[in-house]
Amino acid sequence: MSTNHDVRKEHVVLATHSNLRYPESLTLDWGNKDPMKRGPVVASQTNPKARNAIGTHSGSYTVYRALSIASGKFSPAHRPDLHNTHSPVKIGPFPSWFDETKIVSLDPWGLDPQNHFKGHFEKGYDIRPSIAVTQAHLQIPEIHDAIRAGRLKPDGKIIKENMDIKITKVAIEPVWFLPGMAKRLNVEEGVLRRILFTESGGMYPELITRPDLKVWLPPIGSTTVYIFGNPEDLSNPNIELSCRVHDECNGSDVFGSDICTCRPYLMYGIEHAAETAQKGGVGIIAYYRKEGRALGEVTKFLVYNARKRQEGGDSAATYFKRTECVAGVEDARFQEFMPDVLHLFGITKIHNLHSMSNMKYNAIVGSGIEVVNRISIPAELIPADANVEMEAKKAAGYFTEGEVKKGEDLQKVKGREIT
Amino acid sequence: MSTNHDVRKEHVVLATHSNLRYPESLTLDWGNKDPMKRGPVVASQTNPKARNAIGTHSGSYTVYRALSIASGKFSPAHRPDLHNTHSPVKIGPFPSWFDETKIVSLDPWGLDPQNHFKGHFEKGYDIRPSIAVTQAHLQIPEIHDAIRAGRLKPDGKIIKENMDIKITKVAIEPVWFLPGMAKRLNVEEGVLRRILFTESGGMYPELITRPDLKVWLPPIGSTTVYIFGNPEDLSNPNIELSCRVHDECNGSDVFGSDICTCRPYLMYGIEHAAETAQKGGVGIIAYYRKEGRALGEVTKFLVYNARKRQEGGDSAATYFKRTECVAGVEDARFQEFMPDVLHLFGITKIHNLHSMSNMKYNAIVGSGIEVVNRISIPAELIPADANVEMEAKKAAGYFTEGEVKKGEDLQKVKGREIT
Repeated sequence: MSTNHDVRKEHVVLATHSNLRYPESLTLDWGNKDPMKRGPVVASQTNPKARNAIGTHSGSYTVYRALSIASGKFSPAHRPDLHNTHSPVKIGPFPSWFDETKIVSLDPWGLDPQNHFKGHFEKGYDIRPSIAVTQAHLQIPEIHDAIRAGRLKPDGKIIKENMDIKITKVAIEPVWFLPGMAKRLNVEEGVLRRILFTESGGMYPELITRPDLKVWLPPIGSTTVYIFGNPEDLSNPNIELSCRVHDECNGSDVFGSDICTCRPYLMYGIEHAAETAQKGGVGIIAYYRKEGRALGEVTKFLVYNARKRQEGGDSAATYFKRTECVAGVEDARFQEFMPDVLHLFGITKIHNLHSMSNMKYNAIVGSGIEVVNRISIPAELIPADANVEMEAKKAAGYFTEGEVKKGEDLQKVKGREIT
Repeated sequence: MSTNHDVRKEHVVLATHSNLRYPESLTLDWGNKDPMKRGPVVASQTNPKARNAIGTHSGSYTVYRALSIASGKFSPAHRPDLHNTHSPVKIGPFPSWFDETKIVSLDPWGLDPQNHFKGHFEKGYDIRPSIAVTQAHLQIPEIHDAIRAGRLKPDGKIIKENMDIKITKVAIEPVWFLPGMAKRLNVEEGVLRRILFTESGGMYPELITRPDLKVWLPPIGSTTVYIFGNPEDLSNPNIELSCRVHDECNGSDVFGSDICTCRPYLMYGIEHAAETAQKGGVGIIAYYRKEGRALGEVTKFLVYNARKRQEGGDSAATYFKRTECVAGVEDARFQEFMPDVLHLFGITKIHNLHSMSNMKYNAIVGSGIEVVNRISIPAELIPADANVEMEAKKAAGYFTEGEVKKGEDLQKVKGREIT
């Protein structure tokens, strides 16, 4: 039986109120250029009085951490030993960090806070990183094929002789500045907070009771960025930059399902990112945990069945309609927030954008980043059953250099039936 | 500006209380054999009075759905059209469904609720599926290599002539029966509920205020199951069953990082699952969203850096210690709940278990499933930098048919340094 919980008081505060603000709680001035005036996000639970944000770290994994504490395996008083954990490369600060409209869904100062907020650490504040950077070697079958086919060549630096690709990778937890989120969605902050609370079935009452707390760490998945070449080159508009912004699709990314183009497009992006880095440029792949257009995999599978069983079969002409009937909305990914990750690295110009999505393109350009070329997936990489999705998207206005099917031709694009 | 939210009343209830129970709220009798007596989990938000669970559907994607509503793109009154979404194969009911101790972290009756609870649908209840089943074809480079090497042969049924593997896949949302969860963790239900609430920074006050509601849909990732061969054979102990229970590792599963064995072990499991199905058996791969031992990717990357920079270099001898210093706990995956997914399919005997983890083995056997053979990853599939993890795990008691290193030999197993 767990006893660790005894170190916390048994009295449960259901929701604090604005007039309960403690003097230990540091002010947050989102967008301020001076990190000490901007202030650290404090969302750890070791001293609840010092919190200046709603929610806590690790996104949805906070639930597992709570289980660990309940089971007695994890002391709730634990504070991480951050020695040796710092980034191996320098990232920022960039002008985008000081513009409270450019970055609203992550905390750039959450990268190596032990450096930015040394004084606060010394005073005993338990500040946790919300961003972490490391280096790795990738062994990818499709890249090995590209090397064997002569499209890529080992150079000993970006691509090793053993075909490993050397990269820098960055994990980014969601940290939401709610006034900025509301502005981007064109709703009032109070309305956004109320709907986040009620439609999640009552998650985080402090969204309602603490209008003075402007930052929320929501329990959702993180984003991972893979950088090919020198990360410091990302912010230099004169250095060629190839980019893929990729939304998770576990069924294709890991298991190679042939109903969509996700893994092939991702691998094409990685190949091009490595190639660009070899030519003296830099590549970036951003991977967002937004499974099934951020509707989740249960909804996705229900939609697959409804598509494949509908009268007349799975057709490009009815592709979007089926999702909307089941899910209530075609897409819930909110590409409006996606470019924040690019602004973390100070990106102002993308020479080659690997995406056909107008939603992604419009969000990137609308956020002030110049895009030179848009690159669609080569036809030979599209799996047979994925043509329904591909033709439906092109007909809906997605970017393509090729033909766009309409009317009867669109209806004729059919997928496999389900038994 | 959004107006959709006007259909909901503006008054916000911060947390309902047990004495606010509405007559529309259906009784849940977890483990009851008769689905009408068991009752459906009602966690949709279209009629809050009818809810009989805390939280709502889609795990962490509930946050994105709330954003969709706030932005005016999604009517909060939408109810899914479930026509044609049903499972293409028959799954259950099995005796495990009627044992309230066998399954506590998912809802077996959440599969095709429109069939189980037709009468409630007709009365207007908005019951959502928490499980969905579909079929797909997989195109996996490592499987193509296995076919080219002659280890696997197309048979036109399990493996098509074009090297596609035909599978059935199942997406499963978390649905937690809290009294059963508490029992398995050996804590009191009230303690578990309080710690889940406080340590998540105040998520779902109804965990405290509604002790009468026994079910919670937590905002965490789902589980996906891939079945090779006939899904109905999974519950037949006389049919050979090969199984891999795999915890997500995005860095390896998708990007092929060489610091661990995750993707190679998964691919080995898939190859064996397909081969078993071809021999008249059945294969199952269960994929759990528990990134970085359910500590999340930010923590994982911080640990990588601390491991690779420590005095003496990254060593198998200090592998677990580094995680604990940074994260506070070695592992937060709670394999105690993992076998629930196996019990959903009525599994009672696994002939070949692809896992070296004692935590996984003990959880499976402890849940009443017989395991005949344990299969470790072949040495030739272990990437160079992953030997630190592999030797550390074997030294800690993980299953292996090979040698276990100790003392100086263990210290000598070193990984690459970080720059």
